[in-house]
Amino acid sequence: MSPVMSLECRVSGKGLHEITASVSAAVARLGIAEGLCTLYIAHTSASLLIQENADPSVQRDLERWLDRLVPEGDALYTHTSEGPDDMPAHIKAALTATSQAIPIVGGRLALGTWQGIYLWEHRRHRGTRRVVLHVGG
Amino acid sequence: MSPVMSLECRVSGKGLHEITASVSAAVARLGIAEGLCTLYIAHTSASLLIQENADPSVQRDLERWLDRLVPEGDALYTHTSEGPDDMPAHIKAALTATSQAIPIVGGRLALGTWQGIYLWEHRRHRGTRRVVLHVGG
Amino acid sequence: MSPVMSLECRVSGKGLHEITASVSAAVARLGIAEGLCTLYIAHTSASLLIQENADPSVQRDLERWLDRLVPEGDALYTHTSEGPDDMPAHIKAALTATSQAIPIVGGRLALGTWQGIYLWEHRRHRGTRRVVLHVGG
Repeated sequence: MSPVMSLECRVSGKGLHEITASVSAAVARLGIAEGLCTLYIAHTSASLLIQENADPSVQRDLERWLDRLVPEGDALYTHTSEGPDDMPAHIKAALTATSQAIPIVGGRLALGTWQGIYLWEHRRHRGTRRVVLHVGG
Repeated sequence: MSPVMSLECRVSGKGLHEITASVSAAVARLGIAEGLCTLYIAHTSASLLIQENADPSVQRDLERWLDRLVPEGDALYTHTSEGPDDMPAHIKAALTATSQAIPIVGGRLALGTWQGIYLWEHRRHRGTRRVVLHVGG
Repeated sequence: MSPVMSLECRVSGKGLHEITASVSAAVARLGIAEGLCTLYIAHTSASLLIQENADPSVQRDLERWLDRLVPEGDALYTHTSEGPDDMPAHIKAALTATSQAIPIVGGRLALGTWQGIYLWEHRRHRGTRRVVLHVGG
């Protein structure tokens, strides 16, 4: 089976969208006992994050904190033609991760007890984002 | 030999804890001439960093700068039930890296002359943190 | 052929230097249909970024925004012996990425339509930087 596959992830707007279940299912289908799962997001205004999935207030505070650090309407921006949320989204993506690598142990992702995998959408975007998944031995 | 192993890393509190020696030793034991070493931290309030290990003032300034950017007691936080250092720790982890990948050349990590590998503890935590190490060909 | 190789990247000063063409060429030469390309920068004051390569104003705004967040001459810095751009460069490198992993599909990097690979030089440095490239199956 091919070690690379695409996940089309639906997003309902700005913020953290958990994708742990679909990544875990893809890894389980490959039936690899030990290895490495690498996720890559093929966009420049969204990113991949591994963070706490227990208390939703963590995700909300992360989003609000980053919005305050990188606000819309900053006079510094010259790239404004694609809307007020575009340049903040590029900066937020640059400060976070385009790829994440997670070891596989016993056929499962070696996530910590409270870790979930998130697609962090930085634009006011509804639709799908493409995450490419590679699994190596 | 299994390509995945766990390192239990002792931390004595907030800040940068160098783990270069234990990662290098684990890679050396595997006896792989060329490949890729990926490190993954199974926690959401600590991260992995590759930075200068020559002058300790760099590590001190990094810690102080990030503390100022993400202070405790910010009125923005709603996630406060786990202590004043918890939400800042999640934000700091989100801004830095959960995984690091380092090529192996000639049986050794291809670190630059001044590069060291650090576990960056963001909580006032004494104990151990789990880093998972994957080595691929 | 060895899965690890070095790219010497010329930089003409601070800012984003696109290296997509040389990385793509190296991957093409290896002739691997599906796999994973990992890039690693062997320096602590420069980083690797995947960002929009369509409109140059994005790259300019990214550079100016990060310069404002991490200015030279901050009274917080105690590591000042290597020049005013040194400690900001370490902080900028810590906030961005030392490595990037990009899947290979159909013999090519699975970059999104607008994605380019950049070496982000954080020092007023003219010369070369070493990027190590690993390709796995």
